[in-house]
Amino acid sequence: MAAGPGITAIGFDADDTLWQNETFFRMTEQRFAELLSGHGEHHVISARLLEAERRNLRYYGYGVKGFTLSMIETAVEVTRGEVPSSVIAEILSFGRQMLENPVETLPHARETLDALAGRYRILLITKGDLFDQERKLAQSGLGEYFNAVEIVSEKTPGTYERIFTRHADGPGRAVMVGNSLKSDVVPAIAAGGYGIHVPHELTWILEHEEAPEDNPRFRRIEDLAQLPPLLGQIT
Amino acid sequence: MAAGPGITAIGFDADDTLWQNETFFRMTEQRFAELLSGHGEHHVISARLLEAERRNLRYYGYGVKGFTLSMIETAVEVTRGEVPSSVIAEILSFGRQMLENPVETLPHARETLDALAGRYRILLITKGDLFDQERKLAQSGLGEYFNAVEIVSEKTPGTYERIFTRHADGPGRAVMVGNSLKSDVVPAIAAGGYGIHVPHELTWILEHEEAPEDNPRFRRIEDLAQLPPLLGQIT
Repeated sequence: MAAGPGITAIGFDADDTLWQNETFFRMTEQRFAELLSGHGEHHVISARLLEAERRNLRYYGYGVKGFTLSMIETAVEVTRGEVPSSVIAEILSFGRQMLENPVETLPHARETLDALAGRYRILLITKGDLFDQERKLAQSGLGEYFNAVEIVSEKTPGTYERIFTRHADGPGRAVMVGNSLKSDVVPAIAAGGYGIHVPHELTWILEHEEAPEDNPRFRRIEDLAQLPPLLGQIT
Repeated sequence: MAAGPGITAIGFDADDTLWQNETFFRMTEQRFAELLSGHGEHHVISARLLEAERRNLRYYGYGVKGFTLSMIETAVEVTRGEVPSSVIAEILSFGRQMLENPVETLPHARETLDALAGRYRILLITKGDLFDQERKLAQSGLGEYFNAVEIVSEKTPGTYERIFTRHADGPGRAVMVGNSLKSDVVPAIAAGGYGIHVPHELTWILEHEEAPEDNPRFRRIEDLAQLPPLLGQIT
């Protein structure tokens, strides 16, 4: 336990908080819909893909590999079993390309981490595929800023309770920063911490959630540059 | 740091050490080769699949989803681009079935953990897909025995150094128990710990490695029931 009542730890989400992610999924979905444009309009193909993703979440969890498998499943479906091998090969290649995408950090990510490091325990808390998240963290060059990295399969209040207790002074003295209301903000507040929303222009529909506007531990900032001054206010 | 010089922590591998795993991969490979039997003999199809797995490790890491993607890629290859959609659908279904397989704990797993819990720090150290490993741990009913669970993307000497330092008194006071010489035994010994090999009748060829027979910190036991008496000897 630290001495005072203030904030001692900051958890950062990774995808679409520190670096671009959803944009690569959307670009791939676009290419996927074009590939299958002979079998349905773009919005129809996209809707079928989303259905497959939703249905398969309980098998695959989050990440590129599950997304690739859901694209393949959707291709078999929308072609009524007449999908050419070349299309399957192309989808496999989309997946591999996503797993090789260079990591593009978001504006102010590095300078903000740099400003906060040493003054707070800095944690990376991300969900998705372990292997791919580790690759992205390594490529981002941001790894040195984190006191701990937790890659988890789901982000529930219990997840934040456990992580902020293990690595810091509990959720009551922690803030969680991320673009997803559903995964980053709402469960961190439910665990007793602050939830700071940094909206990203693209957020996956399965991550949508209403903002807890009236909660005293909810904040919204436009970008990460606003985080250090905000922390000065709430701590 | 604990007081004495003895062993204070035991790391357990999961797949094929605490529960069956490789047998499900082999059964699926068998079904996959039968599905494609019109395009090559069993051993040829299997060899092509292994090549794809090896080639894709750097994209997919370990686990069922990557294995499924490699099966699909192999099907496209061996059919020279003439793979029927029904075959793709079948492969997707193989993958989902693997992700739903009931967890079958290996003989003596529970009784051994039960005998050691409370006397040592007990750690689960496993690689593979985060989401699937968490599912298997939950289904195994063995979760309560572990002081910590670490699901990692690779098992190197550095992995063991980090984990045994974080959760216990360092690798010098730890033993690692597992069926894979390459992932469990050899790197744990390289990190300064004991490596205890519990051979499983099936071990994936990419996990093969020569046993460090002459190393004083290497041991081999036939099954987990032999672990508690062995620990009595080396601690």
